[in-house]
Amino acid sequence: MDDRGRLEAFSDGVFAVAITLLALNLFVPGPGHGALLGQLGDRWPSFIAYVISFFTIGVIWVNHHEFIRSIAVVSRTLLFLNLVLLLFVVLIPFATGTMAEYLTAGGQDSHVSMALFGAVYEGMGAAFGGLFFYAVRRGHTVYAVPDNMRRSITLRFSAGSIAYLVAIIVGFFSPKISLTVIGLVAVYYIVDRTPETGEPQT
Amino acid sequence: MDDRGRLEAFSDGVFAVAITLLALNLFVPGPGHGALLGQLGDRWPSFIAYVISFFTIGVIWVNHHEFIRSIAVVSRTLLFLNLVLLLFVVLIPFATGTMAEYLTAGGQDSHVSMALFGAVYEGMGAAFGGLFFYAVRRGHTVYAVPDNMRRSITLRFSAGSIAYLVAIIVGFFSPKISLTVIGLVAVYYIVDRTPETGEPQT
Amino acid sequence: MDDRGRLEAFSDGVFAVAITLLALNLFVPGPGHGALLGQLGDRWPSFIAYVISFFTIGVIWVNHHEFIRSIAVVSRTLLFLNLVLLLFVVLIPFATGTMAEYLTAGGQDSHVSMALFGAVYEGMGAAFGGLFFYAVRRGHTVYAVPDNMRRSITLRFSAGSIAYLVAIIVGFFSPKISLTVIGLVAVYYIVDRTPETGEPQT
Amino acid sequence: MDDRGRLEAFSDGVFAVAITLLALNLFVPGPGHGALLGQLGDRWPSFIAYVISFFTIGVIWVNHHEFIRSIAVVSRTLLFLNLVLLLFVVLIPFATGTMAEYLTAGGQDSHVSMALFGAVYEGMGAAFGGLFFYAVRRGHTVYAVPDNMRRSITLRFSAGSIAYLVAIIVGFFSPKISLTVIGLVAVYYIVDRTPETGEPQT
Repeated sequence: MDDRGRLEAFSDGVFAVAITLLALNLFVPGPGHGALLGQLGDRWPSFIAYVISFFTIGVIWVNHHEFIRSIAVVSRTLLFLNLVLLLFVVLIPFATGTMAEYLTAGGQDSHVSMALFGAVYEGMGAAFGGLFFYAVRRGHTVYAVPDNMRRSITLRFSAGSIAYLVAIIVGFFSPKISLTVIGLVAVYYIVDRTPETGEPQT
Repeated sequence: MDDRGRLEAFSDGVFAVAITLLALNLFVPGPGHGALLGQLGDRWPSFIAYVISFFTIGVIWVNHHEFIRSIAVVSRTLLFLNLVLLLFVVLIPFATGTMAEYLTAGGQDSHVSMALFGAVYEGMGAAFGGLFFYAVRRGHTVYAVPDNMRRSITLRFSAGSIAYLVAIIVGFFSPKISLTVIGLVAVYYIVDRTPETGEPQT
Repeated sequence: MDDRGRLEAFSDGVFAVAITLLALNLFVPGPGHGALLGQLGDRWPSFIAYVISFFTIGVIWVNHHEFIRSIAVVSRTLLFLNLVLLLFVVLIPFATGTMAEYLTAGGQDSHVSMALFGAVYEGMGAAFGGLFFYAVRRGHTVYAVPDNMRRSITLRFSAGSIAYLVAIIVGFFSPKISLTVIGLVAVYYIVDRTPETGEPQT
Repeated sequence: MDDRGRLEAFSDGVFAVAITLLALNLFVPGPGHGALLGQLGDRWPSFIAYVISFFTIGVIWVNHHEFIRSIAVVSRTLLFLNLVLLLFVVLIPFATGTMAEYLTAGGQDSHVSMALFGAVYEGMGAAFGGLFFYAVRRGHTVYAVPDNMRRSITLRFSAGSIAYLVAIIVGFFSPKISLTVIGLVAVYYIVDRTPETGEPQT
């Protein structure tokens, strides 16, 4: 495999394991802890959190795929910036599980768990932004990125970044609205396509 | 890697992790909880459920492989429909473990756990159907799919879909017969090959 | 990816996850359960079992790699026979953990756990044998396999098969000798190379 | 896939799973065990240990990638030496979790857990060294490695090896300083690039 191939293979492995580990947060205590239907119902935050985090990691994977495709030079610095992104991706199952566990606990714990969740998402977005702008600034992309495209991409990264910040702050008042905001960001990124960095599409 | 290559690599990663996590549902409480032979015997639903879910995920993987091979265009929509399929695949270890845990619990819990199991299988089948018909309708396959083949594939997807629905309903009367139905669907899909979408076989 | 490529990618994914999950059997109860050194010492069967199972899965991976390289035709039957092999590979972490947990429990439980461990290894060896002979008999290998080579391979598979059977039987008298036998089989397979099926070596 | 390709694919799979399993050591006991903020604060060693082990596995992956790229011959011995390296990589999540759990426990347990952590890192470094020097001595690299480069690489492996040994010894006096040393080794390996074995860079 060439450099890009192995960067993709390793990253895809991490994305695939992280997205699958999300389901470990779904469990019921087992027989002897009340009716199963009630247990499943009480754990609704886990199911909603699973869907949001699944699609968020999925969106990152799709965008990461398009990003790597546009890269011409795989430098050692790029590999380490990519590791920083993966560091946050791997934290998502933990942050998701903790948030789901505490969302309905009420009080300060709900706020803290939502802030933790938002912070991991914020970190992941910032790491992706850093990876992207590093490659663009160094001219490591296959095609030069025109200024207007660069502006639109900057706007797009900033939108997510601000939305996650809003979610963290809102979480101190209403964790459920905060969760809704983070879910809407996932929907936004699914619907609104990352502008291409100049490579022709298939 | 090209688009198809990376779609396969990521999907294969998720299939591989999900199929391996199935074994996490197999465990015994350890020394001090009665004779090991008795513990293993009491947990027979876990072993049967493991085999059924292992081959079901395996069949999906084989069919997914043949499907991707027949695809010429990897659009962003296809990537997201594929994510929906994986969302259900990742739920299979959870649904399998919960079902095995409650199968012999009796009462409403057995019914609910079997309905959950059947619903995840139903969702997975529907997602695969959606993925398939999206690609065929958009003409994104390597070869045009003739009408008679399209009919036979529709029939095949419908058969699974109806069988899982039957399994969910039967589960409210006899969870064990329901499990047998789901096992038979796996056998059916192993034996009855997915018709090719026009690509010559190796 | 072509058929062989994706068969390898999926199988490698399962091998990689299964070999890594082996380490989940290594854990200590945590602070408040006696001195850490004592806990680690009491759990010596877990560490020995980890090393044996790690190298056994590793050997299977190496041999699987050489096997797939010698295959010219990837039929649907081959894919399913490969799934049967993986079914047993995925059981290895469970069987290893259970065996390590009960090895020093004494009495019937030690025997049963060792028999379970041996049976999973036996099943894995038999599945690999089935996969191999299916491909050879169907003439699906890149080069024809000469009779003397076929005999030597048959002998080699039989050796493992008989050794695992011996380990299961010995396990009813001395689980520790049984574990030693299974460890020696791993060493034997590491040292004694699978004969090539006709393809020139790099 | 060719020999190098599959060696990379399997190794990348193991690296990806091991690096993702690190996050399983991050968990909080859940509602009813005191304030979440306090629980997270008490578990600071887990978070620091996560970051150190994440980047250590990441560095090994980057270096492994550069190493495999420089290899021309994939012998069976190389595959098994690679397995020894992976054996230690897979132990890292276990060693990391145990160390983080006991770091602040005080007394002999802290020392033992830090020695275990250091020993796994030492074993991993030694295994990588063995893999590297085996390939160089056998002349299995794409380009001959000049003497001065061989010396600088030897120095580099020795530096890590001695630092981990120091960390193990220091761990018996101050586990926290020991952890700092291991963290600094990761930083050193990130900053100081592995000398190339003769292959031109992209």
